[in-house]
Amino acid sequence: MSHALDEAIRLASTGANTYTGATHPAYANMVGPYGGATSATLLNAALLHPSRLGDPIALTINFAGPVAEGAFEIEAVPVRTNRSTQHWSLLMRQGGAVCTSGSAVFAQRRETWSAQDAVAPGDMPPPESLPRFGSDLLPPWTRCYDMRFLPGEEPFQFDGDMRSHANTRLWVRDDPPRPLDFAGLAAICDNFFPRIFDRRRRPAPIGTVTLTAYFHADAAQLAAQGARHVLGTARALRYRDGYFDQSAEVWSDAGQLLASTHQMVYFKE
Amino acid sequence: MSHALDEAIRLASTGANTYTGATHPAYANMVGPYGGATSATLLNAALLHPSRLGDPIALTINFAGPVAEGAFEIEAVPVRTNRSTQHWSLLMRQGGAVCTSGSAVFAQRRETWSAQDAVAPGDMPPPESLPRFGSDLLPPWTRCYDMRFLPGEEPFQFDGDMRSHANTRLWVRDDPPRPLDFAGLAAICDNFFPRIFDRRRRPAPIGTVTLTAYFHADAAQLAAQGARHVLGTARALRYRDGYFDQSAEVWSDAGQLLASTHQMVYFKE
Repeated sequence: MSHALDEAIRLASTGANTYTGATHPAYANMVGPYGGATSATLLNAALLHPSRLGDPIALTINFAGPVAEGAFEIEAVPVRTNRSTQHWSLLMRQGGAVCTSGSAVFAQRRETWSAQDAVAPGDMPPPESLPRFGSDLLPPWTRCYDMRFLPGEEPFQFDGDMRSHANTRLWVRDDPPRPLDFAGLAAICDNFFPRIFDRRRRPAPIGTVTLTAYFHADAAQLAAQGARHVLGTARALRYRDGYFDQSAEVWSDAGQLLASTHQMVYFKE
Repeated sequence: MSHALDEAIRLASTGANTYTGATHPAYANMVGPYGGATSATLLNAALLHPSRLGDPIALTINFAGPVAEGAFEIEAVPVRTNRSTQHWSLLMRQGGAVCTSGSAVFAQRRETWSAQDAVAPGDMPPPESLPRFGSDLLPPWTRCYDMRFLPGEEPFQFDGDMRSHANTRLWVRDDPPRPLDFAGLAAICDNFFPRIFDRRRRPAPIGTVTLTAYFHADAAQLAAQGARHVLGTARALRYRDGYFDQSAEVWSDAGQLLASTHQMVYFKE
């Protein structure tokens, strides 16, 4: 039995730098696939590539146009390989048109002095003490995650009661559970609902236009996290004339920063 | 008399999506050009392109390999143009090899509900009350900026007195003054010295591997800022096994968030 995420990111090699794959119904969003599944799939093209060097440290995915349900082609080109870093250009096409573009940086890390300035919130109740978030009205991909929000910070509370910020916290893991790896972490980086929903507490048409994720953990740290919930913290800085940013951190349950991630999101009205 | 930044980002069209340019001695760094000049130059290729739609909202630049002083070629391809957004693929080559890659998102903004959650530090003394930072020992590009740090937060204080964070604030503007525009703002986004220097207060070999900038202002807001100092705030989240992130915000002198920017930086030891 393979996990739905592994099915969603599965690729077949069709040439030196090209792959085919297909969207997965479990990760369907309102229109097309969940962006996190798309970014994990593009990252997977580099992860699977025979020329791959090291592990990902950065990923940028530009959601250039709608992705239709069905087959896609991916081009993953190692545009530059150095002694310890490798730079990738990534493109997803459907019917010959680019629907998603991006880039990734891979690196072979060496042990150095290390420190973490950022501090995970210390007052988050354990996941098992919080109710699982869910709604049959939400798109299928939301049911691929076990999300547990801090009470009062649940998404989609559309009472129109405008807030002064969009800071939220949650515990999240794949459902069914799946040991954390780079593809799974990349997918979780798009897990944070549009901040403008939390800020205005009313719906709006939205769409992520670009997402960047930085990976602070290596494969061993991700393996150590296993399939347990990770902690997510998210906020926005500014909403203006059709676009807002949002940033989020993904923390291990021991308070290690696993990933930090940033988006620009289109909104209407 | 043209400004050195305009000379540094100057490009000559050589084809449908190709340009040539050359590094500028005023923006020389330790090795090769200042990364901010490189990212502004790549952005400029899209800004100058006859197919350009709207203004930049996001830019990602991957510093794939060293850029040598001298001539370079740029390829700027509008990989997808929608009704109100346009996605760019950017490459800089020298001698046929990719030295820099990237992407940009442009958009035609429409007036919408707008708000700013982030708050500029309110206790920063005005720029004219602070001494200008400078050192003849630093690379030429640092003298292209008038930087005024909050006392105690000056860079390169290499006394080995480890700090618990790398948060710093400064006022910065081009020197000579230059009215702010997207290229100038993109260049300033790489202005923040490596956080690991502020954190450990000792030198180390470093190099930015990837930079992302989000533009929250439009051309009119940048024009309103003119050539006055902008406020910069910066910090890091985690340093680990050869790489650390840093994030920064660039604020107008009226407290509007003009840009937010993020990097992953290589370090040794």
